[in-house]
Amino acid sequence: MELLKNKILNEGEIYEGNVLKVDCFLNHQIDVSFLSEVGKEFHRLFKDQGVNKILTIEASGIAIASMVAQEFGCPLLFAKKTKTKNIAGDVYTTAVESYTHGTTYTIMVSKRFLGKGDKVLIVDDFLAIGNALNGLIELVKESGAELAGCGVVIEKGYQGGGDKLREQGIKVESLAIVESMNHETGEIVFRD
Amino acid sequence: MELLKNKILNEGEIYEGNVLKVDCFLNHQIDVSFLSEVGKEFHRLFKDQGVNKILTIEASGIAIASMVAQEFGCPLLFAKKTKTKNIAGDVYTTAVESYTHGTTYTIMVSKRFLGKGDKVLIVDDFLAIGNALNGLIELVKESGAELAGCGVVIEKGYQGGGDKLREQGIKVESLAIVESMNHETGEIVFRD
Repeated sequence: MELLKNKILNEGEIYEGNVLKVDCFLNHQIDVSFLSEVGKEFHRLFKDQGVNKILTIEASGIAIASMVAQEFGCPLLFAKKTKTKNIAGDVYTTAVESYTHGTTYTIMVSKRFLGKGDKVLIVDDFLAIGNALNGLIELVKESGAELAGCGVVIEKGYQGGGDKLREQGIKVESLAIVESMNHETGEIVFRD
Repeated sequence: MELLKNKILNEGEIYEGNVLKVDCFLNHQIDVSFLSEVGKEFHRLFKDQGVNKILTIEASGIAIASMVAQEFGCPLLFAKKTKTKNIAGDVYTTAVESYTHGTTYTIMVSKRFLGKGDKVLIVDDFLAIGNALNGLIELVKESGAELAGCGVVIEKGYQGGGDKLREQGIKVESLAIVESMNHETGEIVFRD
């Protein structure tokens, strides 16, 4: 997606340790009119898959998934990272290791909102090693729902998580795949 | 907002301890076409205030705020609850006590995205005691930005947080104000 690549090049910042910061438009301040285009692009890529539910994980996936759900005209479900007393009853859970924070946390969705008959498109802002996405895929499997695929805004191709999922036959569509970054020169190379 | 009151009556569940669960359409599974109407309603209520930024708090405010930002054609900024290594540089912070979780946490926004010249509409899913909203208002004050007002989907009127803010002269618009709930009978009384 050229619009995204240009935004990454113009507004993104690279920090030591392979950190690509896009918090000016994607995951802190959010450019909603841009995300609206992202929603349309994911709809174009997955419109023939029979999607009837969008699944993401709090927090930075939610704005993106909202725009995608709007295009598909279907509900959005976001996995929560901790158990709150406002979620009663049975939940599907799985453990996810956070590469960013260096911790492991539990994600969960209520059994009432995911199950047989659902065709799920998973959406997230970043895909690196793939821990969050693998956790979400695990929840879909547990629930008996069917996975339509995964839509990712920015994939860090050099960390291999996306290709591992593709090797399993999962349809993974990333709107920009970063093959390499250099925090000293600011250079970013995208996969074709 | 009649559509909201009907959804609360038809889809909401009341639990002991004044818990109103609306996780089937507002804060776990999200009815995006309904939220789109919520966005239009907040735009109608605040369109003359010169709003140029929507501020909310992760996680359940984000989907709502996305729809509001779409109506206003302005960016959305969400306050984060913990310091991650992907937010560099200076941040505005304040402490917020969580009524739901019984803990205190720090919320923060990057100084780069909030400041003088911003006219901020704060949006959130629930208003009870008002701790989260007071925290967000504190961040706006710290930044030197101007507060246009607060748009809340469901206010628990009997907990008084909304009226305290209104007494301070802040424009607080709630789309439904619950005056009382009875978890035994399931009865919900709305403020007119």
